[in-house]
Amino acid sequence: MTGDQGLREQAVTDEVVASFAGAKDERYRVVMGSLVRHLHAFARDVRLTQEEWDAAIGFLTRIGHITDDRRQEFVLLSDVLGLSMLTVGMNAPPQQGATESTVFGPFFAEGAPEIEPGGDIGRGAPGTPCWVSGSVRSTDGTPITDARIDVWEADEDGLYDVQYAGNRMQGRGWLRSGADGGYRFWSVRPAPYPIPDDGPVGELLARGARGPMRPAHVHFMVTAPGFRRLVTHIFVEGDEYLDRDAVFGVRRSLVHAFTEREGGTAPDGRAMDGVWNEVAFDIVLAPEGETT
Amino acid sequence: MTGDQGLREQAVTDEVVASFAGAKDERYRVVMGSLVRHLHAFARDVRLTQEEWDAAIGFLTRIGHITDDRRQEFVLLSDVLGLSMLTVGMNAPPQQGATESTVFGPFFAEGAPEIEPGGDIGRGAPGTPCWVSGSVRSTDGTPITDARIDVWEADEDGLYDVQYAGNRMQGRGWLRSGADGGYRFWSVRPAPYPIPDDGPVGELLARGARGPMRPAHVHFMVTAPGFRRLVTHIFVEGDEYLDRDAVFGVRRSLVHAFTEREGGTAPDGRAMDGVWNEVAFDIVLAPEGETT
Repeated sequence: MTGDQGLREQAVTDEVVASFAGAKDERYRVVMGSLVRHLHAFARDVRLTQEEWDAAIGFLTRIGHITDDRRQEFVLLSDVLGLSMLTVGMNAPPQQGATESTVFGPFFAEGAPEIEPGGDIGRGAPGTPCWVSGSVRSTDGTPITDARIDVWEADEDGLYDVQYAGNRMQGRGWLRSGADGGYRFWSVRPAPYPIPDDGPVGELLARGARGPMRPAHVHFMVTAPGFRRLVTHIFVEGDEYLDRDAVFGVRRSLVHAFTEREGGTAPDGRAMDGVWNEVAFDIVLAPEGETT
Repeated sequence: MTGDQGLREQAVTDEVVASFAGAKDERYRVVMGSLVRHLHAFARDVRLTQEEWDAAIGFLTRIGHITDDRRQEFVLLSDVLGLSMLTVGMNAPPQQGATESTVFGPFFAEGAPEIEPGGDIGRGAPGTPCWVSGSVRSTDGTPITDARIDVWEADEDGLYDVQYAGNRMQGRGWLRSGADGGYRFWSVRPAPYPIPDDGPVGELLARGARGPMRPAHVHFMVTAPGFRRLVTHIFVEGDEYLDRDAVFGVRRSLVHAFTEREGGTAPDGRAMDGVWNEVAFDIVLAPEGETT
């Protein structure tokens, strides 16, 4: 839009940006100024109609009303618009040799149990047993001892423990790396699952002809003094949703082979009966404070 | 951000925009694509931190939870970010000779009473009596008969009837223009007032060192067959908040003299006792369907 109308529209934007000029916190002033400029540029680019503005207010209102202690629809909205993954990518950019980060998601829970090395974070969750092992090292190859490894995952029905009624604590636990940086535990093979799509974000996906599915994955959060906190997943090689994750979290380097085994002896000496899986995941942490 | 990191960030945006490619409704695809691009550009411009993202999610959640049937904090957010006024300006751009539009605001109420010509929309609202008169004409000067004129305003305490407990209907009513396009009614002189600032939007204003006040005004909505609906205000000349309206609604052409009188005879022949005000407001409607 050019001419007088363009000037009038720009004048509104300038007036709003200027209204923040007295803010004491310079960062706040910068962020709000940029927010206003981009928000207005969006409205001007699409020539937003009054009906669309009404619809947007109604959409946000419904998101606000479905959000409670157990459901965070605003996080879901950020996820499906790729803002969560973009923010992760800006704040934890890939570093030479370090494991890549991905979205935190809404299913982490405080109070998960500590697991002994080689123990079972599945804790009775339904699914095929899966042996996970690897090492935690720094980017220079030094093993990291006593790193805390938090793990959480959906079961074979695609559900996290917190999505069941009651107070289950399954598919969730934490352990520490050993003297050689190594770690190992039993879990269950994760399954693809839909993000909650019975609310406003589900409407958005449906209108966009987008699916709600996430490819199967196991969440990891790894912390150790002197290293940048790593929030990531391992994805299951061959999963049909790897190229259309509803929240855009897939990184090629995070896709791993979950090898199928049957019977025999597991790496921890356990005699196995029936099908089980095995996956290796070597974790590399970046030193704290460094950026690309 | 340039180099590999810039390419990685752009790839996230491109992936999200592409995810809407299958949407059946082309307008939806265009709007969502533009929204994603501008939202991501904002996050990249300010290098949004994880803590700021957390704060934004918390802020929107609080807005959602304070919003109910009587309070619309998302509209208030749109208002203080100038998005409401920008949208008004795009959808009802000034037309040669027509009265300018401004924000609708959250205080319109259905079911207001019809007032006879020369009647009182104040209906007992506290304040100095104010005689309002003028004409409704088309841009070619033709008087418009039977235009519906809805009027609503805050009282001398800066409150609308709906902000009081109970079911008051004061400072609110509608009437029709006469055969000559003329209209006239009694009201009360409006007062400046703060927008609701005890919620999240109030926090935003406080951090921005912005005030919550709106300059005194009377709302008008004027409709007539064949003409574009006009939503506007008249503002009180000399009001101290004219240059810092919290919602950016002031247009110079909408500022009118509220002339103070004392005693004597009012234009409708009524013998006056004490102070009263008088204001003239000639309304010009644009033909339907035409744009600048």
